[in-house]
Amino acid sequence: MTGRTSLTIVLAAGEGTRMRSSTPKVLHQVASQSLLGHVLAAAPHGAGSALAVVVGPDRQDVADEARRVRPDAATFVQRERLGTAHAVLAAKDAIAKGADDLLIAFGDTPLISAETFERLRAPLKAGAALTVLGFRAADPTGYGRLLVEDDQLVAIREHADATLAEREVDLCNAGVMAFAGKTALTIIEQIGTSNSKGEYYLTDAVEIVRSMGLRASVIETSEDEVRGINTKAQLAEAEAIMQARLRKAALDAGVTIVAPETVHLAADTTFGNDVTIEQYVVIGPGVSIADGAVIHAFSHIVQAAIGKKASIGPYARIRPGTSVGEGARIGNFVEAKAAILEAGVKVNHLTYVGDTHIGAGANIGAGTITCNYDGFNKHKTIIGAGAFVGSNSSLVAPVKIGAGAYIGSGSVITRDVPDDALAVERNEVSMKEGWGKRFRDKNAANKKPK
Amino acid sequence: MTGRTSLTIVLAAGEGTRMRSSTPKVLHQVASQSLLGHVLAAAPHGAGSALAVVVGPDRQDVADEARRVRPDAATFVQRERLGTAHAVLAAKDAIAKGADDLLIAFGDTPLISAETFERLRAPLKAGAALTVLGFRAADPTGYGRLLVEDDQLVAIREHADATLAEREVDLCNAGVMAFAGKTALTIIEQIGTSNSKGEYYLTDAVEIVRSMGLRASVIETSEDEVRGINTKAQLAEAEAIMQARLRKAALDAGVTIVAPETVHLAADTTFGNDVTIEQYVVIGPGVSIADGAVIHAFSHIVQAAIGKKASIGPYARIRPGTSVGEGARIGNFVEAKAAILEAGVKVNHLTYVGDTHIGAGANIGAGTITCNYDGFNKHKTIIGAGAFVGSNSSLVAPVKIGAGAYIGSGSVITRDVPDDALAVERNEVSMKEGWGKRFRDKNAANKKPK
Amino acid sequence: MTGRTSLTIVLAAGEGTRMRSSTPKVLHQVASQSLLGHVLAAAPHGAGSALAVVVGPDRQDVADEARRVRPDAATFVQRERLGTAHAVLAAKDAIAKGADDLLIAFGDTPLISAETFERLRAPLKAGAALTVLGFRAADPTGYGRLLVEDDQLVAIREHADATLAEREVDLCNAGVMAFAGKTALTIIEQIGTSNSKGEYYLTDAVEIVRSMGLRASVIETSEDEVRGINTKAQLAEAEAIMQARLRKAALDAGVTIVAPETVHLAADTTFGNDVTIEQYVVIGPGVSIADGAVIHAFSHIVQAAIGKKASIGPYARIRPGTSVGEGARIGNFVEAKAAILEAGVKVNHLTYVGDTHIGAGANIGAGTITCNYDGFNKHKTIIGAGAFVGSNSSLVAPVKIGAGAYIGSGSVITRDVPDDALAVERNEVSMKEGWGKRFRDKNAANKKPK
Repeated sequence: MTGRTSLTIVLAAGEGTRMRSSTPKVLHQVASQSLLGHVLAAAPHGAGSALAVVVGPDRQDVADEARRVRPDAATFVQRERLGTAHAVLAAKDAIAKGADDLLIAFGDTPLISAETFERLRAPLKAGAALTVLGFRAADPTGYGRLLVEDDQLVAIREHADATLAEREVDLCNAGVMAFAGKTALTIIEQIGTSNSKGEYYLTDAVEIVRSMGLRASVIETSEDEVRGINTKAQLAEAEAIMQARLRKAALDAGVTIVAPETVHLAADTTFGNDVTIEQYVVIGPGVSIADGAVIHAFSHIVQAAIGKKASIGPYARIRPGTSVGEGARIGNFVEAKAAILEAGVKVNHLTYVGDTHIGAGANIGAGTITCNYDGFNKHKTIIGAGAFVGSNSSLVAPVKIGAGAYIGSGSVITRDVPDDALAVERNEVSMKEGWGKRFRDKNAANKKPK
Repeated sequence: MTGRTSLTIVLAAGEGTRMRSSTPKVLHQVASQSLLGHVLAAAPHGAGSALAVVVGPDRQDVADEARRVRPDAATFVQRERLGTAHAVLAAKDAIAKGADDLLIAFGDTPLISAETFERLRAPLKAGAALTVLGFRAADPTGYGRLLVEDDQLVAIREHADATLAEREVDLCNAGVMAFAGKTALTIIEQIGTSNSKGEYYLTDAVEIVRSMGLRASVIETSEDEVRGINTKAQLAEAEAIMQARLRKAALDAGVTIVAPETVHLAADTTFGNDVTIEQYVVIGPGVSIADGAVIHAFSHIVQAAIGKKASIGPYARIRPGTSVGEGARIGNFVEAKAAILEAGVKVNHLTYVGDTHIGAGANIGAGTITCNYDGFNKHKTIIGAGAFVGSNSSLVAPVKIGAGAYIGSGSVITRDVPDDALAVERNEVSMKEGWGKRFRDKNAANKKPK
Repeated sequence: MTGRTSLTIVLAAGEGTRMRSSTPKVLHQVASQSLLGHVLAAAPHGAGSALAVVVGPDRQDVADEARRVRPDAATFVQRERLGTAHAVLAAKDAIAKGADDLLIAFGDTPLISAETFERLRAPLKAGAALTVLGFRAADPTGYGRLLVEDDQLVAIREHADATLAEREVDLCNAGVMAFAGKTALTIIEQIGTSNSKGEYYLTDAVEIVRSMGLRASVIETSEDEVRGINTKAQLAEAEAIMQARLRKAALDAGVTIVAPETVHLAADTTFGNDVTIEQYVVIGPGVSIADGAVIHAFSHIVQAAIGKKASIGPYARIRPGTSVGEGARIGNFVEAKAAILEAGVKVNHLTYVGDTHIGAGANIGAGTITCNYDGFNKHKTIIGAGAFVGSNSSLVAPVKIGAGAYIGSGSVITRDVPDDALAVERNEVSMKEGWGKRFRDKNAANKKPK
């Protein structure tokens, strides 16, 4: 909203006891991002957009997450739990700086969009003192009702206080609000505690606005967008809604997804053109998939860059720090961790490559293990371009396999191999004729084979 | 139901030809438990609760399953198939022992709950001679209708015999019944065969009860709870309903399940606090998961105990007899069978540990195989606390690796290794300079690389 | 339809730009078969059933796919894109041969059934000149409406041209049509371009038929069956519908599928009796599964024959050219490619068998790799009946392991092993007492273990 400054206060001090978890509620994740992170990502960004997060006492973890996602976030502690208006006033110093628009959001409603925040601000620009976000509830029981007359919001009526006629209203209070900055503090500081719980409720702001002769408006959105998360079941529902959004966006962008309901994306997953994703793929945070890449079934990818026309899986596990070059292949039952694969590399089967750099066109045989850990430290393996590592080899790091070198199958390589050399660690095969028959006869005398 | 004795007769003699299977119908499974097992688990338990299962001729397998689940179950054979009342009378000797309440259930309706059995018994305590379980059918066509007058059940009318007005009734007969014990046998023995099929139907009991001047009641439940299983499609539907129940119960107990629709539980799965389960996890029977454990994506666990803060998967297969200690980790593409992992053990990649005991804090490298089978017998591998087994090692059982011992990567270990020793089975690396280039040149002359 | 000849023209020249893909639209797949392939498979077959496919310019790939599925298909190129009637006339030479029935289908409506094609033909036999396929649209907006009077189709009214009353009609044009052969060309050649886009539309045929005093009929089908594919999202929806059909058919045939929504079949998958499929199984094209076989969870099978009572998975990847014999087992984290397993073979864990023949009853130990690729060529491994390959072995192809032979664990086998012999490639174990403690002490002085 060009030309207007904003302060968004995100209330993130709730304890979330109904989550039955030692993790604070707003740090639970949806689509690999914390609930709080989703709200902060949707809140107004850029020049003139300040951000304040209100956290509970001793919740450094929540404050840290806020700054991780939005380094510009100021954090404030709500020491006592005396209602939403009280929570907002924990950030009074931020409000006092006087932004044009003051937005109030909640750390446990992760599905809200940036567009909705902007829609909330529009009436302020047109002179309203307050905008409240509303939704049409399928079952309004228990929600505060938004009472509207002549296009103006006249009150938020709690369910318990509503008349039978008011209970027929299905337009409900989502909690999210926007105040015109110049009157915000005056309004919020007038909120009292004359209610059954004796707490300071932001919802009282509507009647104060009206009593001051100012205008309050309603902006409507869908019930799904304003779902709050209070239980593990609601967390799972939010995950499902977010996944449906992410899958639809990917399909609309031209990604071929064979069975979209079986593909799990992160909020930050990016796709090039003509990408294909097969069934049962789980993608965590920090993943980019370039043009023409194919992710085969049963793959799991986190914090990795998949290059153009690369082929991943089936059954590939790509861990953080991995980069797969153009046309490279990572096949079945392969784990890659902090592995850089240049273009055209093949790691097709039953392999672990960790802390490894593999030059262009190298072929890593089935069953190869980079032995990167000695029980104390992690070490690096460097494999040159065009090298061929035979199956079932063990590369004991730190070690360097030269460009164009060959490693014989089953070798344990503990020292560097020059470019173009063949390295084999192996013994003569000893052969005992007839041993098999004797062994079977002996055992068969004792016991039947299973 | 304190103070009243009961006999539950479970009818399990049906052939189930529509299942198109050589397995008897009631032995098909839902949530890793047989259909019969679900019914037996829900039937009244404890002192004063007798159980009789009526099986078909030559169905020792069904009788065995009954006694496996409920060792107190008596079994009776129905030699001819002459209707439900005839089946009940196969257990006449059990009825004659005279319990206060006689419940009739069916081995192919696995979704019925213990609470429903108790609700059925309540009217008997209040003097009714018979209670029939009913449900409101979305489409009642084909079901027997429960005709109720003045809160009393007056008849069960088969669809074919119903008037147009009676067909408007959507309250249908679920089959499950409870008789007051003192009149049960008198009533059931009066049931005749005057119907189109010439069979003895329990549904006739209602009119006999009325003719005796006694009372019959209806207890309602949901249609889902009384679904009978006759086809593979219905079996799959029951599985889906049961999974939905189990997932909801786990979420309500505080388990974090990222995508509940992708997690498959067994009826007996147990969870501690703060457990997390990622996508695509299949849990079979006999699994317990302790506080703070994380089950990563694509894991498969059967008959195993997962300890506190243990980490399983992704892509871990945990087979029967495995116990994973506190903070221990089983990683990707690892199979554990009858493996005891003490606290803090790490088995992170591409490994098979079978018939193995691993002491606290040991680290098993990628690609390690316990060679537990010689073609005739299985042997044990014992790995001491703090041992470090290098990658791609083969431990040929029976073998013991001492506490704090190290095994060099790629070694085949065929004899015991003392505590704190280093054991390496390896040869010198032979190096042929330039071999790689010569090999490529020779092949390139004949054929292009693929 | 005995006694009547047919020509089916499949229009497959659309560019499909909304797919956002470099692959032509009709070559995208549903249930492992191209959209075009589905239509061609449903079109009339056998003697007297001719087939013509109209493709875009330079679309040899589409023409090739048509002939791959139906070698009898003639292909025609539509050089300009001037409407559906113009596309049909690209195949004028085929029409001129004079079949009794001329069917017009679309390469991007893959869900249409053979039965529907036959139902379309029936009115022609009874004297109609044209039959149009219709469906009741949940939301008819945008579709052409089928206007019916006295059981005759009188017009197809485009949405834009429809009166308000006509817009109330929910019977919509699916596009698919059948013409009586003798008047087909006369009718189609009369179609003009007097519409807003100036193109030749087949829908005009109805009014031409009427003007000629001939009869046009409507055959109804479901909206699902005539879905056209224009976007990746619609492709995914068609996949879901097709999978639901295939799963239902498998269940009805008696296959036990624990969670049908998690099993993905190909259009050509075949099943024997008493087959069981667990959760999360992906089956590609060309797979047969014989009586009593069990496919365990997380398995992936393409172009392979699974024998009677064979057991596959969990986590087995079966690639093309694999045949699994009676009672054979392929276990977890095993990849089989072009592998022939005779009866009773066991390949239970962490193994790659490629280009391999394994004789009856052989046991392949965990971690075994057939080293079939030398960077230039693929070579074969032959393992005799009853052989026992120890764990973590590498079989360097070409190589032959004799019947009844034993391979010691961890061996690299580079030459043939005679029948009944024992072959071991291994060194002495060197043991350094106390090394473990010294290594730990040294490292602990520098760094804490992780």
